[in-house]
Amino acid sequence: MRELRINSAKVKQKLVRFIRGQTEQAGFSRVVIGLSGGLDSSVVLYLCCQALGTENVFALILPYKTTSVQTLNQAGLIARRCRTKTRSIYITAQIDAYFKNFPHADKIRRGNKMARERMSILYDQSKELDALVAGTSNRTELLLGYGTIYGDLACAFNPLGGLYKTQVRQLAGDIGLPKEIIQKTPSAELWPGQSDERELGLTYARVDRFLYYLVDEKYPDLRLLKLGFKNSFIEKVKGRIANNAFKRRLSAVAKI
Amino acid sequence: MRELRINSAKVKQKLVRFIRGQTEQAGFSRVVIGLSGGLDSSVVLYLCCQALGTENVFALILPYKTTSVQTLNQAGLIARRCRTKTRSIYITAQIDAYFKNFPHADKIRRGNKMARERMSILYDQSKELDALVAGTSNRTELLLGYGTIYGDLACAFNPLGGLYKTQVRQLAGDIGLPKEIIQKTPSAELWPGQSDERELGLTYARVDRFLYYLVDEKYPDLRLLKLGFKNSFIEKVKGRIANNAFKRRLSAVAKI
Repeated sequence: MRELRINSAKVKQKLVRFIRGQTEQAGFSRVVIGLSGGLDSSVVLYLCCQALGTENVFALILPYKTTSVQTLNQAGLIARRCRTKTRSIYITAQIDAYFKNFPHADKIRRGNKMARERMSILYDQSKELDALVAGTSNRTELLLGYGTIYGDLACAFNPLGGLYKTQVRQLAGDIGLPKEIIQKTPSAELWPGQSDERELGLTYARVDRFLYYLVDEKYPDLRLLKLGFKNSFIEKVKGRIANNAFKRRLSAVAKI
Repeated sequence: MRELRINSAKVKQKLVRFIRGQTEQAGFSRVVIGLSGGLDSSVVLYLCCQALGTENVFALILPYKTTSVQTLNQAGLIARRCRTKTRSIYITAQIDAYFKNFPHADKIRRGNKMARERMSILYDQSKELDALVAGTSNRTELLLGYGTIYGDLACAFNPLGGLYKTQVRQLAGDIGLPKEIIQKTPSAELWPGQSDERELGLTYARVDRFLYYLVDEKYPDLRLLKLGFKNSFIEKVKGRIANNAFKRRLSAVAKI
């Protein structure tokens, strides 16, 4: 998609500077990253290493008992490729201890609890390592609210929040990340078989192009329809954006 | 302190309206509150009951194994007084499962992990109860950053964020909350014997008056000195405010 093409060399330079600026400004020189072996966290790991030096980047692998071997292998692969230190901490005991008392909780609740446990561990470890928590959410996820508030959406700074998922994928290809990671089906892996696109009922290719025209180019509905987007699709995506706006802003504080 | 006196009837009316407005706007009619038995959460519980009706307010008591019987009794006392439904969920299993692997973690790390576990449970239960999470941080805590980011500072909306601690105490007295709760030594109770004022090295009476002149009245240092605040005190509080500013704003997202 022509509209979404980026100049990877320039974007990379910009993001490396952003990461350096954010850490310096906060008085830090190190970061921790929750590494899932997926596309976004792999790109953030790579960029942080470029920005701060491998020795200042800590990759935390935080599996649950259902996390697949393939996923763990991919996390290991990218960490070796970047030569970063990794630490694996299972979240299983905490999650299972909690849900023992709520056995009927559905997978959404379980998934959100896992995302928040990972955040909580990243912040705890960041304290020990004297590091900041780098976020890994992309622009598509932020706009659609596809993430857990105070979970995977929580971070000290977010390098990928200006890039749509398809742009993150292009960047990953251009900087030479392993094919296995780039071609992997996007998934939060909060339960076996979860897939972003199936859960959203959207493909990234289509929704990214749509978001570009809706949000960046501010097209009215008429022009979106002319581009071939159906009314039902337009309504659906706009609804998601509106319903999840609370995840992108500070909570209201009563004024006296 | 004259400067900090509030008109409790008016403030109460304002906050009741704020709570109603926030829940309606988000399409909800119910809230959950983490009830510690301390001053702030007790006041929030009372205000939410006034705003939404007792049947729409759920008080969650989330003790750790070191939580004192006195604290549990006080949480029960205020819940009975407001006639709210309560649910007790211990956080001990999750916290201990995590720190088993990090036995040397200090009390700050343990306290932060607890605060985040409580947030995580409040959000999980809010999903089950179809409710919003009401925050309980006051203005003093927000300005001084005395709280855990993505822990007790996380909420859907915050009724007390415009009131200094001493004002919350006045409000609690004026609306007739039990004396035991109003006179209790303020503490996050993340470890036995913790006290806000000892940990901060400040008394609320003094720092609230100072914050009023510094933040609300925008007094320059010269005038603050004339009011009797020492240079070292001014520097210390200003330093805290600046160092904790990150807790009060959204994390930076890279722009492309």
